[in-house]
Amino acid sequence: MIIIMKPNASEEAVLKIKQIIEDNGLQAHLSKGTQVTIVGVVGDKSKLLSANIELIEGVDKIVSVTESYKLVNKKFHPDDSVISVGTAKIGPGHFTMMAGPCAIENHDMLLETAFAVKKAGAQFLRGGAYKPRTSPYAFQGLEEEGLKFMQEAREATGLNIICEATSLRSLETAVKYVDMVQIGARNMQNFELLKEAGKAGVPVLLKRGLCATIDEWLNAAEYIASEGNPNIVLCERGIRTYETATRNTLDISAVPVIRSKSHLPVIIDPSHATGVRAYIEPISKASLAVGADGLIVEVHPCPACALSDGPQSLTFEQFDHLMDELRPYAELSRRNTK
Amino acid sequence: MIIIMKPNASEEAVLKIKQIIEDNGLQAHLSKGTQVTIVGVVGDKSKLLSANIELIEGVDKIVSVTESYKLVNKKFHPDDSVISVGTAKIGPGHFTMMAGPCAIENHDMLLETAFAVKKAGAQFLRGGAYKPRTSPYAFQGLEEEGLKFMQEAREATGLNIICEATSLRSLETAVKYVDMVQIGARNMQNFELLKEAGKAGVPVLLKRGLCATIDEWLNAAEYIASEGNPNIVLCERGIRTYETATRNTLDISAVPVIRSKSHLPVIIDPSHATGVRAYIEPISKASLAVGADGLIVEVHPCPACALSDGPQSLTFEQFDHLMDELRPYAELSRRNTK
Amino acid sequence: MIIIMKPNASEEAVLKIKQIIEDNGLQAHLSKGTQVTIVGVVGDKSKLLSANIELIEGVDKIVSVTESYKLVNKKFHPDDSVISVGTAKIGPGHFTMMAGPCAIENHDMLLETAFAVKKAGAQFLRGGAYKPRTSPYAFQGLEEEGLKFMQEAREATGLNIICEATSLRSLETAVKYVDMVQIGARNMQNFELLKEAGKAGVPVLLKRGLCATIDEWLNAAEYIASEGNPNIVLCERGIRTYETATRNTLDISAVPVIRSKSHLPVIIDPSHATGVRAYIEPISKASLAVGADGLIVEVHPCPACALSDGPQSLTFEQFDHLMDELRPYAELSRRNTK
Amino acid sequence: MIIIMKPNASEEAVLKIKQIIEDNGLQAHLSKGTQVTIVGVVGDKSKLLSANIELIEGVDKIVSVTESYKLVNKKFHPDDSVISVGTAKIGPGHFTMMAGPCAIENHDMLLETAFAVKKAGAQFLRGGAYKPRTSPYAFQGLEEEGLKFMQEAREATGLNIICEATSLRSLETAVKYVDMVQIGARNMQNFELLKEAGKAGVPVLLKRGLCATIDEWLNAAEYIASEGNPNIVLCERGIRTYETATRNTLDISAVPVIRSKSHLPVIIDPSHATGVRAYIEPISKASLAVGADGLIVEVHPCPACALSDGPQSLTFEQFDHLMDELRPYAELSRRNTK
Repeated sequence: MIIIMKPNASEEAVLKIKQIIEDNGLQAHLSKGTQVTIVGVVGDKSKLLSANIELIEGVDKIVSVTESYKLVNKKFHPDDSVISVGTAKIGPGHFTMMAGPCAIENHDMLLETAFAVKKAGAQFLRGGAYKPRTSPYAFQGLEEEGLKFMQEAREATGLNIICEATSLRSLETAVKYVDMVQIGARNMQNFELLKEAGKAGVPVLLKRGLCATIDEWLNAAEYIASEGNPNIVLCERGIRTYETATRNTLDISAVPVIRSKSHLPVIIDPSHATGVRAYIEPISKASLAVGADGLIVEVHPCPACALSDGPQSLTFEQFDHLMDELRPYAELSRRNTK
Repeated sequence: MIIIMKPNASEEAVLKIKQIIEDNGLQAHLSKGTQVTIVGVVGDKSKLLSANIELIEGVDKIVSVTESYKLVNKKFHPDDSVISVGTAKIGPGHFTMMAGPCAIENHDMLLETAFAVKKAGAQFLRGGAYKPRTSPYAFQGLEEEGLKFMQEAREATGLNIICEATSLRSLETAVKYVDMVQIGARNMQNFELLKEAGKAGVPVLLKRGLCATIDEWLNAAEYIASEGNPNIVLCERGIRTYETATRNTLDISAVPVIRSKSHLPVIIDPSHATGVRAYIEPISKASLAVGADGLIVEVHPCPACALSDGPQSLTFEQFDHLMDELRPYAELSRRNTK
Repeated sequence: MIIIMKPNASEEAVLKIKQIIEDNGLQAHLSKGTQVTIVGVVGDKSKLLSANIELIEGVDKIVSVTESYKLVNKKFHPDDSVISVGTAKIGPGHFTMMAGPCAIENHDMLLETAFAVKKAGAQFLRGGAYKPRTSPYAFQGLEEEGLKFMQEAREATGLNIICEATSLRSLETAVKYVDMVQIGARNMQNFELLKEAGKAGVPVLLKRGLCATIDEWLNAAEYIASEGNPNIVLCERGIRTYETATRNTLDISAVPVIRSKSHLPVIIDPSHATGVRAYIEPISKASLAVGADGLIVEVHPCPACALSDGPQSLTFEQFDHLMDELRPYAELSRRNTK
Repeated sequence: MIIIMKPNASEEAVLKIKQIIEDNGLQAHLSKGTQVTIVGVVGDKSKLLSANIELIEGVDKIVSVTESYKLVNKKFHPDDSVISVGTAKIGPGHFTMMAGPCAIENHDMLLETAFAVKKAGAQFLRGGAYKPRTSPYAFQGLEEEGLKFMQEAREATGLNIICEATSLRSLETAVKYVDMVQIGARNMQNFELLKEAGKAGVPVLLKRGLCATIDEWLNAAEYIASEGNPNIVLCERGIRTYETATRNTLDISAVPVIRSKSHLPVIIDPSHATGVRAYIEPISKASLAVGADGLIVEVHPCPACALSDGPQSLTFEQFDHLMDELRPYAELSRRNTK
């Protein structure tokens, strides 16, 4: 931690800061500049609440030197993680496709979709049983019944299955059925849910919050990891900006940023990122090329009849075409898609 | 709902749309322009899922005409609401001050703060028993013990008390103690929590999400209202933008916007909005002048020793000064501060 | 300047950095922490290009300690400036009203408006002769003819006049006519224009760019000041965010932030900030209460006939009412409105 | 254009709107819904200033149906454009590499860079002779002398050359030397400069403004096109968001969005988008895969000695490696890189 003093800070103020630091069992290194004095703090900073030092007279600002996340930090775990989920592996060397409907609407549409995405080459079936919806009057999901359909689809196709949990209650139910639990963008800082997902030990797909910084996202992952669960995959799904031509703004640079800061795998959700079917194929290719470890894509037997997210869902044919288009890119970068 | 066709949409495509609309028991009004054809849809739009019409051939885009929130919508409830909470009233004609520490750290600091803010003229004691923190390694709150201290503070001072609930579990506990429950920015779209708060019937302070639009915020309020709980007060606390000179960017215009769209009262949190103690007084005056119905402000016996949010907390003296400064503005706009 | 080394930086790398710093005639102070080493750089940092040090092996990041603007920086000029423009003063102790049409449409509408805003109590007539418009097919302004009408309005009413310059050419023309030149949001980083405005010596109203940080804004002011022109007034006019309920998002906290960082006066433009007539009065009161030094407001004899910005323009009656509403707030904060 | 009436709008108000529309030589189509009435306006909307209709009693809001840009609009020019610049072609079927230093610092570094990027396979040499810099105290460029060095580099290597013009003055000079003029992000809405670039007829690389919407960007291109210059290439270079892990946030989805809305080619600037050397290679691959028509990349003989943008500049070796990595991706998508 570094403390930057105001240009007019008195000698006395500097000494007082030094005293406080030393009283907390830390060391203070002073650099007196021509304009300002800087105080470097050495030692275990958790002994000191940096924020409040800002309030001491003569202090201009505080600069943090180290990140607050540890377990998911590449600095302390330099080797990239490969996470095993069901029959699949997610991480470097692999390119994992997850596909399925936004919401599980009924038994038949789910099974039909499962067979279609399996045939096209997906490894995971996605499907929402609990739906977080902006309006209370929109379709809210089939809940446990939906999870049972998912389980049936797994048995029928061999696909791994992933569902979102939106509360402690739905998490408790979901872990009985799924291979991987998704924590959605709106719950990225639902800390109770993160801790429970950590305790449950189930593999977690952690979506980035709508306006979360990468640091906040990694701290959210740290909540899960700190409860003893290292099976975390991150998912970039677009952030909120002023641009409205797409539903969100895909922050594709988040992939190399995560690579440099964390050992966790990261995949991309082109469906929510763009909200427009026509943009999903080019964005999927870009995701593979930038180094993402996989994709989660919305597919529906009849997008025009979908109860939610129709405009961003692919038909079976379109998903099939997408898979064909992605294969040569996966080969080029030596990624296993099976 | 309005459907805008593409410039090159065929006559056939337009007729197909018309058919779909009529098959759903609605009426279609066509306007054929020189460049594009527009289809107005008349009737109960919940019969139709507007999103998917975007997928029909020839359709360019869909424009919603009416908001999805009803109970909190001023169009259907033109009179502004005044919400009664404990001994206080929140809404037009009143200016309600809520003050207290970010986190309840122990018994004595809370009681000391309660007496100080009561003496200065506050009507509510705020204090966090459950703290949502970015890092899992930061102080997480005293939980139920904290709520008991709050209750004791109410009995000792006559202040009304407000605490945040961060999960179904903490909500269940909090309602036994508090006059008003706060749902924080990070949980604004925790729909399970909103519904439970609706069912509980307790007055709710609903903070705006960090990157929520005003429409999403009102839809979140609708979740509470739709469960039969009309006792909702909104709280603007700054949104996330690119500017880093303040912790968040206070969207002060949200106050007149809410006034024009909803009958619910709205207050401002200058502490989280700015994150800087020196800005709280000018922003508080502006909040009163713009027509907000109150403020929620962080006050601490010793900000430099606070376990969280020290830099944005006022000392007792500063809060006292703030109250003195605000009184003439309240009088000018004929607002009752008691 | 502070250099933060990577956790795994070698002793050698640290010594190399030290050498580079000393080779540039500066001093290096080392703080070796348990995790990282920090290097404080003392001396005239312009001798060193901080950015590139980031590229040296073992360096994690660079932290700037001092701002790059000097002349407009409060640290070096602690007394707030009061700027004289024509017969008016702008700065602490004053509250300056500027009003008039977005665009000067013709002679009569301008003169009519001038008399109306003068009577209501404004000190400045604003009016656009050169209009920056998003589409090339929108009305682009009367140019020099408009400036002549402005001059006539000044002579007829005694109002001071302000017009925007959008290029070196229009600046050259405008300075012959106006009391104050406005540099608009879109040109806040048109550095050639800033330098010319600096050389011209004319008082400048410098609007904040649509997505400019406060630091960039003060650096833009520094461009003007560095050419020898200290007569600069800042104008906050809303920034671009994801929220669309208002045209822009007024960053009202920018007023106290500017107060703490610069000695320059700052006014607010509620018309562009909100884009909605109904919000202008509450936002104007908030602007006065937060401590802004004045307002620039759009007024039009017939907003529904305006060639631009009609929806955000006040009628004469509305402006009159606004002035009446603002006076008690100005008195309360002891600000001179004449 | 569509006019949406308020739920409580009177029959009279609707008739008045109808009258105004017809008085302007247009047709009005009414759709009376259960909640609101909608008025479709048919005819040449330039006869009516939509904005002001918002002010008429009973009107809730106005919805635009058609874009204001025409010449650069794909709806009216469905075939994608391929732009010829010097010896190069930019557009579908090609992948054009532009590379060189941020600023031209001196004769030798420019020539050295030119030979290096030519050898690696670039088609354009980029180099800044006029530098827009946030601080007035930073290096501002060699101006015309720099352009002469660029010309010499072209003669020596056969590369096409591109330089930024930051003012009418620099544009006038630059067109004498360069194959293509760049209009930078800060000048995207410097409308005088756009018009002059349109008149000059020189091929223009138009960078997206830091917070410009795609619609504003296409309208800026329309300014150039409307002066008779169709030789426009767009360049996405990242937008400003709340995320600070990268210098800007690359909006990679802008590429497919532009493809669907305009016939103009679009390239990507990964150097400014990320600001970090390590992210340039993955982002370049993603740019190619998403369908961008080329890249503009910063390369410097000694990034650690660069006068600007050192941290985001590639060394010659890194650029060489980048080109090698991109070639198989270009082949895969059948793009010509020569």
